[in-house]
Amino acid sequence: MEKNGDRVTASPNTLRLKRLGIDTHQEAVIYMRSDCHVCRAEGFATHARVRVTVGGASIIATLNRITGDLLAPGEAALSEIAWARLGSIKGAAVAVSHPRPLDSLSHVRAKVYGRRLDDAKLAEIMGDVVAGRYSDIQLSSFITACSARGLDRAEIVGLTRAMVAVGERLDWGATPIVDKHCVGGLPGNRTTPIIVAIVAACGLTMPKTSSRAITSPAGTADTMETLAPVDLDLAAMRRVVECEGGCVVWGGAVDLSPADDTLIRVERALDLDSEGQLVASVLSKKVAAGSTHLVLDLPVGPTAKVRSEADAESLGAHLEDVATALGLRATIVRSDGRQPVGRGIGPALEARDVIAVLQGEPTAPTDLQTRAVMLAGALLELSGAAEAGAGVEMAESTLNDGRAWVKFQAICEAQGGIRTPPMSSHRQPILAHSSGCIAAVDNRRLARAAKLAGAPDAKAAGLELHTLLGQQVEKHTPLFTLHAETRGELAYALDYIDSHPPIVEVEQTS
Amino acid sequence: MEKNGDRVTASPNTLRLKRLGIDTHQEAVIYMRSDCHVCRAEGFATHARVRVTVGGASIIATLNRITGDLLAPGEAALSEIAWARLGSIKGAAVAVSHPRPLDSLSHVRAKVYGRRLDDAKLAEIMGDVVAGRYSDIQLSSFITACSARGLDRAEIVGLTRAMVAVGERLDWGATPIVDKHCVGGLPGNRTTPIIVAIVAACGLTMPKTSSRAITSPAGTADTMETLAPVDLDLAAMRRVVECEGGCVVWGGAVDLSPADDTLIRVERALDLDSEGQLVASVLSKKVAAGSTHLVLDLPVGPTAKVRSEADAESLGAHLEDVATALGLRATIVRSDGRQPVGRGIGPALEARDVIAVLQGEPTAPTDLQTRAVMLAGALLELSGAAEAGAGVEMAESTLNDGRAWVKFQAICEAQGGIRTPPMSSHRQPILAHSSGCIAAVDNRRLARAAKLAGAPDAKAAGLELHTLLGQQVEKHTPLFTLHAETRGELAYALDYIDSHPPIVEVEQTS
Repeated sequence: MEKNGDRVTASPNTLRLKRLGIDTHQEAVIYMRSDCHVCRAEGFATHARVRVTVGGASIIATLNRITGDLLAPGEAALSEIAWARLGSIKGAAVAVSHPRPLDSLSHVRAKVYGRRLDDAKLAEIMGDVVAGRYSDIQLSSFITACSARGLDRAEIVGLTRAMVAVGERLDWGATPIVDKHCVGGLPGNRTTPIIVAIVAACGLTMPKTSSRAITSPAGTADTMETLAPVDLDLAAMRRVVECEGGCVVWGGAVDLSPADDTLIRVERALDLDSEGQLVASVLSKKVAAGSTHLVLDLPVGPTAKVRSEADAESLGAHLEDVATALGLRATIVRSDGRQPVGRGIGPALEARDVIAVLQGEPTAPTDLQTRAVMLAGALLELSGAAEAGAGVEMAESTLNDGRAWVKFQAICEAQGGIRTPPMSSHRQPILAHSSGCIAAVDNRRLARAAKLAGAPDAKAAGLELHTLLGQQVEKHTPLFTLHAETRGELAYALDYIDSHPPIVEVEQTS
Repeated sequence: MEKNGDRVTASPNTLRLKRLGIDTHQEAVIYMRSDCHVCRAEGFATHARVRVTVGGASIIATLNRITGDLLAPGEAALSEIAWARLGSIKGAAVAVSHPRPLDSLSHVRAKVYGRRLDDAKLAEIMGDVVAGRYSDIQLSSFITACSARGLDRAEIVGLTRAMVAVGERLDWGATPIVDKHCVGGLPGNRTTPIIVAIVAACGLTMPKTSSRAITSPAGTADTMETLAPVDLDLAAMRRVVECEGGCVVWGGAVDLSPADDTLIRVERALDLDSEGQLVASVLSKKVAAGSTHLVLDLPVGPTAKVRSEADAESLGAHLEDVATALGLRATIVRSDGRQPVGRGIGPALEARDVIAVLQGEPTAPTDLQTRAVMLAGALLELSGAAEAGAGVEMAESTLNDGRAWVKFQAICEAQGGIRTPPMSSHRQPILAHSSGCIAAVDNRRLARAAKLAGAPDAKAAGLELHTLLGQQVEKHTPLFTLHAETRGELAYALDYIDSHPPIVEVEQTS
């Protein structure tokens, strides 16, 4: 309330922004001095959620108080994500106030206590989630409540629609738009670039957005980046797809289903992935991408995400059911999820496998080729490009006669120019301690060794497998080879391998 | 793995500690440069949970990465709580590594999916909670799962025992040890110091630990601090109780049920307080404090925590039942929770009400006196100091003949010396806009105005109510008076009152 114009002109809640460069990942944080007049006047406690306004933009942030002299009186700072969301500049005026109550939290509480969430409530929750109004504590409560109480079919459909509605949605002006998704990836399972090349060569449209690695040694976007640029914006992506019928770009630049990115981070921290949330997560990305025909690959294995045929049955039925409700046509394919696919693990090493398959090299990994052909075949049939039962043959011949390789090169050129994957400068084979049969491969520790060697940041880093389950090896045969870009990282991965039980287990056959 | 002694001698994971003074409340955070060799070598992502070791002590912390030059190469920093937990010193060496997997999270997931938590699992979870191994996301999931799936009687008892087991537990070597707890406090309801004085004067032992304000304008410890020191450690508290039979000290210095403090912070952020968790929270503090006889006050009112007689019935039954299982004797008292109690709101102003009641001043607030006498009477009967039905009379005469006042002064002296509550230097009465009847008091906004005026940090700040529900007032009569220690804070509270609907509603009687 301004009275007579003789009150203070600058709002007493205004501070000047300083940049501290603190990366808190997705959580918006504001840093204020603990003796700050705004803290005291507003009665803010540490860890309170406060409304932060810079220029015309507002977000909700968590308050951290500074007790030393990191900030001068009258200064405040923002975490990097808050800085970016507000489009801040150094020295700008920042106003801080109490946020309006978050009404959608009452829907979360209602779900905790067993009530259903209708479409309007789910839309409200997702709106607040993408606006960054939920703290980690509140996000976690929503995810846990949905897991504990479960989501029925209508709720999953409503959640998926709400997740689509709060992000970008692509419209390609034509059908079919095909896509493929693998639930719970296996190390090295880089079928996507091969499938895109095959189906685009057959005349289908497959505008593929893919992710970078979060916890794995490589995501499809990391691998593809060693072959062509992937940081395309929506306009550039459209040009590639219009010209070549397909692309493999990084989804992060396109902003499809941003709510999903937020929820997935918290689900990972909890190691919770309920079927309903998994279904909404997968399908929201596909609907937002404008897909109409979808092949879903469910690898089944003891260390895969889907552990048993019964789980695959249930998840597959849910995915198909909800996809239908959302107007998508979907085919579920179950595959072998017991060991890595291909030979390379790490961006450039996986890219070499992809190129070997596309070029039809005699040494190309047959497991990767077989999978890619099977999934491409399913897409060709689902979309009507091939008769029922004739998809695999069509995919195979498109690969064998070189049309897929020609198409792949054209896509890479359209994305900004084809590249040769880098070669590692430091290598070290890991040898079998004894002769015998390969009895087990620890996928988790294999991935960890590849990461310690530098993947995915160091594109050429990772490892190359030389053996498969059930193979016989002689003592001192290389089981796999570590690849690194620096001597230090190679040493670091070797230290890890030296100080742990064998990653590839050889059973002595005496 | 050290080999031949010719490898690097300092661990490659060691950094030097710098103090940044960032207060993140209870969440332990480590700040590391994003180009730090340890981050890269270990494959840490921002927001990862990492194990931090300084000297012999280890904690789990969340990683924030620094992109600017806040930290020099080779430096790391800790949030204040992490600094304190590790007993760190500037320049000390800090080692960072991957934490061991948190096994107890699988019990949380099991609860999410509907399985019961037995005593051993609850003990494991609480052990990890007090050790600071749970992130906010994980704490929130535990609390939400317990609310969504509910806790049965055995689980509540198990949770309460587990919360007690991970903190200090006091043993007074005698019984009865009496205590009183009010579930969901009302503004100004400062009966505790009066009750302690009465029952100690009657020969009972009441070693009372109380809390500071978190979201209210004053906690009992804040109020008591204007009358005597409350920051006593366990040894000093024992001396006071042995000498005088009672005390009123701040519980934070004694560390009873530290798991409860952690859980309550997250429950507040979620606005979730399920009956099971409430019961475990209240009773764990009491068992840890060594109490044997307990009076539980349940104020019932539309804006109180307990909203209906039915809710009070259910909660009361649960409290009594679980208390019995834990070997406590408990009496439930339901009281009127429709408006504030006493006249003052704010530490010193509430202390003046307490003193007025103890000194038997004719102007003392009768509602506060009546409540204190009723609850003290219930304690006297429960513990056997008074015959059934004779407790209130015994409490009343102890208050009226001055014995309670004498005892209270002795307790204050034993705690370090009696003090006179400070007087505010700036005051402003808020007047009725019209004549009429007091129809409603908005407790929430009343508390907010008191906090804006400076309470509880400014001890003399707050407000003084001059009217009660149903009273007739003339136009321009003072409804309440604001108290502040600075002109600025008074202006701030006045601005708030000016720009909002009336806090005390006067209904015109024309």
